[in-house]
Amino acid sequence: MTHPQVSSPAQYRRLRVALLGAGAVGSQVARILLQHGEELADRAGASLELAGIAVRDVDAKRDVDLPKDLFTTDAESLIVGSDIVIELMGGIEPARGSLLLALSSGADVVTANKALLATHGPELFEAADQVGASVYYEAAAAGAIPIIRPLRDSLAGDRVVRLMGIVNGTTNYILDRMDSEGADFGEVLADAQRLGYAESDPTADVEGFDAAQKAAILASLAFHTAVPLEAVHREGITRITPSMIEEARAAGFVIKLLAVCERLVVDGAESISVRVYPALVPRTHPLASVHGANNAVFVEAEAAGSLMFYGAGAGGVQTASAVLGDVVSAARRHIAGGVGVGESTRANLPTVPIGSVITRYQVTLEVDDQPGVLAAVAGILSDGGVSVATVVQTVEGEGEDDATARLIIGTHRATEQALSDTVEKLAASAVVERVVSVLRVEGE
Amino acid sequence: MTHPQVSSPAQYRRLRVALLGAGAVGSQVARILLQHGEELADRAGASLELAGIAVRDVDAKRDVDLPKDLFTTDAESLIVGSDIVIELMGGIEPARGSLLLALSSGADVVTANKALLATHGPELFEAADQVGASVYYEAAAAGAIPIIRPLRDSLAGDRVVRLMGIVNGTTNYILDRMDSEGADFGEVLADAQRLGYAESDPTADVEGFDAAQKAAILASLAFHTAVPLEAVHREGITRITPSMIEEARAAGFVIKLLAVCERLVVDGAESISVRVYPALVPRTHPLASVHGANNAVFVEAEAAGSLMFYGAGAGGVQTASAVLGDVVSAARRHIAGGVGVGESTRANLPTVPIGSVITRYQVTLEVDDQPGVLAAVAGILSDGGVSVATVVQTVEGEGEDDATARLIIGTHRATEQALSDTVEKLAASAVVERVVSVLRVEGE
Repeated sequence: MTHPQVSSPAQYRRLRVALLGAGAVGSQVARILLQHGEELADRAGASLELAGIAVRDVDAKRDVDLPKDLFTTDAESLIVGSDIVIELMGGIEPARGSLLLALSSGADVVTANKALLATHGPELFEAADQVGASVYYEAAAAGAIPIIRPLRDSLAGDRVVRLMGIVNGTTNYILDRMDSEGADFGEVLADAQRLGYAESDPTADVEGFDAAQKAAILASLAFHTAVPLEAVHREGITRITPSMIEEARAAGFVIKLLAVCERLVVDGAESISVRVYPALVPRTHPLASVHGANNAVFVEAEAAGSLMFYGAGAGGVQTASAVLGDVVSAARRHIAGGVGVGESTRANLPTVPIGSVITRYQVTLEVDDQPGVLAAVAGILSDGGVSVATVVQTVEGEGEDDATARLIIGTHRATEQALSDTVEKLAASAVVERVVSVLRVEGE
Repeated sequence: MTHPQVSSPAQYRRLRVALLGAGAVGSQVARILLQHGEELADRAGASLELAGIAVRDVDAKRDVDLPKDLFTTDAESLIVGSDIVIELMGGIEPARGSLLLALSSGADVVTANKALLATHGPELFEAADQVGASVYYEAAAAGAIPIIRPLRDSLAGDRVVRLMGIVNGTTNYILDRMDSEGADFGEVLADAQRLGYAESDPTADVEGFDAAQKAAILASLAFHTAVPLEAVHREGITRITPSMIEEARAAGFVIKLLAVCERLVVDGAESISVRVYPALVPRTHPLASVHGANNAVFVEAEAAGSLMFYGAGAGGVQTASAVLGDVVSAARRHIAGGVGVGESTRANLPTVPIGSVITRYQVTLEVDDQPGVLAAVAGILSDGGVSVATVVQTVEGEGEDDATARLIIGTHRATEQALSDTVEKLAASAVVERVVSVLRVEGE
């Protein structure tokens, strides 16, 4: 019933679409644009003409067979005169320069570039504002899962209290296999590399850099605040051992690499915390059942309550879905007219350092199995202002002279500062042989 | 960094917001607009001034204490001159007339009225198109769960293959309690009514009318086609017994009232099916773990793969979250300028009758425990072109003369027509005493 004046795609206004990059995602975007062009035109109310694909090497092997004459190494000529520019090159430069050029020439831009957004987002958004264009980036966090629009638009009238996301598929794949098979980190990582789930240099994933970039993007949207990447506390999963996973299981937890974005009040001031670390999640929590390389984002909002968004966090064709949703949205806006809606960042909440965050620790200690040890440990905790919620003691080599005991201590909630100071004192104490592991508990 | 020219709410353009209805949702919308006005203004880039609340009875008792002078019985005067009109009255009239008046006077409208959208959606969308306004309705399906924007925008570049939703909280509450407690339908319904989970007249929920309205809305978005309510096949849950639930459990299933929206090819033509019925869902499917009055929508798309959206499907404050997200979106559009983006309905796919749909049945029969009965039943199935996947036989009163057996037959996939014709022939057959239950299997 709508748009009755338009009956055939031939009548649609033509929009020139430039694609930068033809890797796993880019080649799928090009394929779908070419194969489903008419269908997408009907949805967009505009004909989406793929004007060209800028690449470094025109003759490189691609995942998808695409018309040779679309390829060019001259990105600049392609960008200028395009209505929509899709950037799927990744990295900071030349992506940044290309997008600034696109915006300054009045194009709307679509990008999946989380590294660029997390470091140069405000620059891009300001460039877009200046010409009334828009930056679309649904594919930059949690892959195919629609999470940007829900945070930016659907929850714009609510107050997000906490967001917890499994936003890196590689680490979830590794942790999930360690959990289900009892396997070692290095062993599963090697396997993940062989299967293409992990890069040959896995640092960005396993050290949490990728998740931190996504956390910065999600926190910016959730809290209407430009959150710089430097404000994100980051820890990776390389120190996670099979025995930590086994102990977690025994206590009813699973270990997940979480991006936690949280609203909190510190010294009377409304603030936020953004952090990425492996944490113990109760097995009954919806995030605990996110398996393999999947992603999920769990959001708690004041009015809406608990929401969860689940799906594929990566993959060429999956990510292409998010990119093309943005392309159709950009096309619709071109046809509708008006300027782009800028980012909402006026709340300007300060990000607190990790020390001010209130969490709960689970600490595993190796101690001498001697009378008085538990009392000594309890004393250190109490001196540090850390109150104990649970203690489990297991003894190895019972009855022998060199018997050692394991103490698994679940603390009550306290500041990270108090908790980490106390763990340091425990480590230095004569009665503690070794601090085996320290993990936060999230999602209780 | 964005909108640097605007530094204080005092400088924002003021938008007049009219609220129609002050029930459970409306009173929360008013409260949040009043309490968080400054915060919402910062996000919208516009000051949202609640101009008034139109109600039938100014003196009625409300859930929330609101300023008396906001209330009026004169909806018409309130609507004319407003920039954004929020309709939370429910029902067809006077909601329809009020929204048409709002649109014709150039306002954007926000509504949670699923009944109105499912029956008069195209009329409203066309009225909006004529003046370049927008109709926002995130709250009309699955309550607080952001599902409208994901389908409308995020997946606009993809092809939805199937959508399966638990979109009615009342029936999910009832079925979940029947499943966990072995309780009877009538018993749990009475309890649900006492607790406020079900209306005193529960027909709209338990007979699937509410879910059918939401299915029409979701299918329209998913398939870019105006799906009329009459095209939705609908069955309720009143016939579900504890023994059906018990049998489902034994076979690894849980019974859920599903809204299924599916793309299929019938006689070579791309078509869709939209249907609401109680179905057997494998306990391993993500929808199986949606408990209580919660809602969830599971989407399978060609490129994105499987996605799930989960959250509260009803509740005053939860639904208010979705309404206010729409209000902020409408305000942003007002400030950005341009016309509203109309509905995408140009795919215009035909909806096939239920008989053409391919499903899989699980049929429970009561039969005489005599030799040859299974052969006779198998013969009827085979004559009907229905192939058998699984048979489980249980005998009651074994060895006695009047012993009866239960046959639980899982069929392979076939058309609904073939399946239902065959079940009719089974019912009429001399060897079958009673057709105990017939349920489709979904989500395998």
